Amino acid sequence: MYDQLRFDYLSCAGHPHLSTPNFDRVAQMGVRFTNAYVQSPICGSSRMSFYTGRYPSSHGAQSNGYPLRVGEQTLGDHLRREGMECVLIGKTHMKADVEGMARLGIDADGIIGVRQAECGFDAWVRDDGLWAEGPDGFYDEKRSPYNEYLKSKGYPTENPWAHFANAAVTPEGDIASGWMFANADQPANIREEDSETPWLTREAMGFIKQAEPGWCAHVSYIKPHWPYIVPAPYHAMFGPEHVPEARRHASERIDPHPVYGAYMRGKVAQAFQRDDVRKKVIPAYMGLIKQCDDQLGFLLDFLQDTGRMQDTVIVLTSDHGDYLGDHWMGEKDLFHDQSAKIPLIIYDPRPGADATRGTTCNTLVESIDLAPTFVEIAGGKVPDHILEGRSLLPWLRGETPAWRDYAISEYDYSPTAVCAQLGVEPRDARLFMVFDGRYKMIHAEGGFRPMLFDLQNDPDEFHDLAKSDDHGAEIDMLYQHLAHWGRRLAQRVTMSEEKIKAGRGASARRGILPFLTDGSEVPPDLTAKYQGRAAKRFVED
Amino acid sequence: MYDQLRFDYLSCAGHPHLSTPNFDRVAQMGVRFTNAYVQSPICGSSRMSFYTGRYPSSHGAQSNGYPLRVGEQTLGDHLRREGMECVLIGKTHMKADVEGMARLGIDADGIIGVRQAECGFDAWVRDDGLWAEGPDGFYDEKRSPYNEYLKSKGYPTENPWAHFANAAVTPEGDIASGWMFANADQPANIREEDSETPWLTREAMGFIKQAEPGWCAHVSYIKPHWPYIVPAPYHAMFGPEHVPEARRHASERIDPHPVYGAYMRGKVAQAFQRDDVRKKVIPAYMGLIKQCDDQLGFLLDFLQDTGRMQDTVIVLTSDHGDYLGDHWMGEKDLFHDQSAKIPLIIYDPRPGADATRGTTCNTLVESIDLAPTFVEIAGGKVPDHILEGRSLLPWLRGETPAWRDYAISEYDYSPTAVCAQLGVEPRDARLFMVFDGRYKMIHAEGGFRPMLFDLQNDPDEFHDLAKSDDHGAEIDMLYQHLAHWGRRLAQRVTMSEEKIKAGRGASARRGILPFLTDGSEVPPDLTAKYQGRAAKRFVED
Repeated sequence: MYDQLRFDYLSCAGHPHLSTPNFDRVAQMGVRFTNAYVQSPICGSSRMSFYTGRYPSSHGAQSNGYPLRVGEQTLGDHLRREGMECVLIGKTHMKADVEGMARLGIDADGIIGVRQAECGFDAWVRDDGLWAEGPDGFYDEKRSPYNEYLKSKGYPTENPWAHFANAAVTPEGDIASGWMFANADQPANIREEDSETPWLTREAMGFIKQAEPGWCAHVSYIKPHWPYIVPAPYHAMFGPEHVPEARRHASERIDPHPVYGAYMRGKVAQAFQRDDVRKKVIPAYMGLIKQCDDQLGFLLDFLQDTGRMQDTVIVLTSDHGDYLGDHWMGEKDLFHDQSAKIPLIIYDPRPGADATRGTTCNTLVESIDLAPTFVEIAGGKVPDHILEGRSLLPWLRGETPAWRDYAISEYDYSPTAVCAQLGVEPRDARLFMVFDGRYKMIHAEGGFRPMLFDLQNDPDEFHDLAKSDDHGAEIDMLYQHLAHWGRRLAQRVTMSEEKIKAGRGASARRGILPFLTDGSEVPPDLTAKYQGRAAKRFVED
Repeated sequence: MYDQLRFDYLSCAGHPHLSTPNFDRVAQMGVRFTNAYVQSPICGSSRMSFYTGRYPSSHGAQSNGYPLRVGEQTLGDHLRREGMECVLIGKTHMKADVEGMARLGIDADGIIGVRQAECGFDAWVRDDGLWAEGPDGFYDEKRSPYNEYLKSKGYPTENPWAHFANAAVTPEGDIASGWMFANADQPANIREEDSETPWLTREAMGFIKQAEPGWCAHVSYIKPHWPYIVPAPYHAMFGPEHVPEARRHASERIDPHPVYGAYMRGKVAQAFQRDDVRKKVIPAYMGLIKQCDDQLGFLLDFLQDTGRMQDTVIVLTSDHGDYLGDHWMGEKDLFHDQSAKIPLIIYDPRPGADATRGTTCNTLVESIDLAPTFVEIAGGKVPDHILEGRSLLPWLRGETPAWRDYAISEYDYSPTAVCAQLGVEPRDARLFMVFDGRYKMIHAEGGFRPMLFDLQNDPDEFHDLAKSDDHGAEIDMLYQHLAHWGRRLAQRVTMSEEKIKAGRGASARRGILPFLTDGSEVPPDLTAKYQGRAAKRFVED
């Protein structure tokens, strides 16, 4: 998993200037899914959906830093039940439910507590990749294995992530922080081999080298997520001439949906509305992706050389995209394809997948489909009373199973300034995307109108059709989908479908018979415990 | 809490033949809520909603015997946080999530594990009151304190609950089981004082006698739940002449909703369609209620005599009703008022409630409103990111707060024969009631049409308006309510509204600054950690 890797910044996905031969190589060996959506276009919530196989409204960790409730089952639980290891190498953005663990008396240092805090993974290395620091301290209060690594390599500050990996140096010898877009075209002041992507790639190889067969490794890169700065030579590979025109339309700023309007007025969006910013930042973003691709090449060669390419399923994906100035927006957060759609490439070495190698598949995929896919790969039956996604393996085998009619994605903006500006209560600061393959509707709680885009006639999503009253029928249909989804079975997690069926009739055979007139209605063995001589008489005749 | 006590089988609620002076006495001291609905018309699921303050689709224990997931917070968690004890005396129908507890390493015998298994209560005495026994063993595999009590009192079998408390004795000296309606007019073969209701009343008094101030006691009677049999003299207080005509209409059997139709064809319903059954059973049901009322009288006198009446809030309610042959139905399970509506009387001794004593309140109450009511009584702030109901205290104070537009109730028939007969998968065997105070719609998953009743023009709910196409507008409106409910915030239980608001802006002060062109956009302290001389140069100029 890459972080903030936009679906169309790969050459196999048609990028005009960015060549990613190693992503393309996996796409050639497997299937590239061209309609894959995250369940939330923000790191933490999206990832918790990947890891639990459940929608944000089901797992409850609906924004960054919102703890995943203790006991919520994850891929780790499901895979270990099938005898498969489940290992983390890199980022999860998991926030432990410390209060919940204390309430249940779970020892934070025991194996169960540690896994609860790591959303079910055994951490080979946990590094969320944002070692930002301000007047109130570090954003991430954990120990940074990456900073420890850099220090061991002679990077001489307490936070070399900030001062070297994510900063350039001026000719005068001053730190030029990667947080500032003005520095995005400078090389990070770090040896390329020590930068985050190569470091994590070596960690992944280190894990694989020593692993016994039967593992699932979540190799989870922070890049190409911001800060937008990359070491040489990647800083110089792309320039302003490789930056596509911003995909934005004047009409988007006219009578925008209030939530979209507030986002467009935000600091990040305003920065990305400037062409000088885009021309500095996007070449760095491309350089970061190019570095990711090169490192992927090393990893693929390593798998090939060690024989692992024949018995390893490879999935390449991202937790969300990046607007990069399209739609007058920066970052992610809303539901245009630039934000909510992700790259998804799956390689399955088994002969059953031979028929689909090198193909694309445009079925409507949700990120929650990966957890059940992995459970099926591990040889398990998908616990579909817990996991809300569906295994993608049939598509890899060339089958065309009956499939979902719509995809849902959610965004919780309760922690943001937008929520405060709009005067919305945190509980109402929630957006829902419903996409049926053609129409994409965004519903906003709190009394706002919806947004509606027709991706068939307006693939760029410039024209919000809900500004007029002309599309009531489409809106009604999408609201029906959303209502259907709202009634989904999400919390009956303690009873499987099979167990429910098998339990039918059990209570009668355990003496519960609230329908007998005289007992003749049922076989005598059902009432035998209620028959016989009364052992004593306590009442008068 | 009484079990299966129908809302209209109290004299204060207008029953023509049943006098319940002690229920009425509490109603005179407090407020009787005349529009209170359970969140599920079946014991286990309804009770888990009372105890968690959450809808069945939120807590997930959607039918009897479906374990409440480990970690789901209950009244016990919320009240103990406020320094209040939370004690069980009687029935909960709680099924422990043994698998979940094992997964989290929770010692089943430790205080945390025991409370998890008792849905948060400390059990003064736990007795679910159904010690039924069949060829496959006991329905309830726990130890029965009530059976132990009976044995200590000289009832000479291993299951005196079945053989004495819930059985008569024939003139020939044979057991005449209370499971058989033919025996419902006979006195149970037990001293009245040893029967379940007096026994539990004494247990309640025993608890109160020794309790330090600051407790919530769930005094939870099994009666008037079946088996329908009652000791003397209650068995003889009511006869066929006190049995109201069945409230049923020939039109209900014409083209019924498929789920309702299947229930009407079930064994329980068919039994209660017989007038001879009703005339045997209903007098016993009334006798059981009369006994409950008498015991309530003893309890009220005890509170009065011990000074507790001045500092104890009393809530009288039930977990659901009983069709008793109305609507051609027996038992509960569906959403006619006989099943889903409950008695609810609240007495608050504090002066603030003086203005409402002896009044009724017809606001739309849900059973999940009690948990927040109790938290407020305990002096706490209602954790409204967890509890889905609303405190009723304002109504007791005579206020008329803005209130809900609709009530929801749910029923999961996945474990039933009806589900199998209709060919519905367990995940689709779910019904949702939406009631706006006038129209009551029942939505059934699985592709069925809805049901619709107009309680203003058809208070008996005989005419299902959804049989025709004439009420599309009302149905659309109720579906909009249901859709709104489906999008409710139910699982973001690790973050309160206050915590979310307080956390805004925190990431910028911890160095997350993804919007800076050159740093001049923010106060210097935000970027201070990224400034200064570079400690070393790793890249060429």
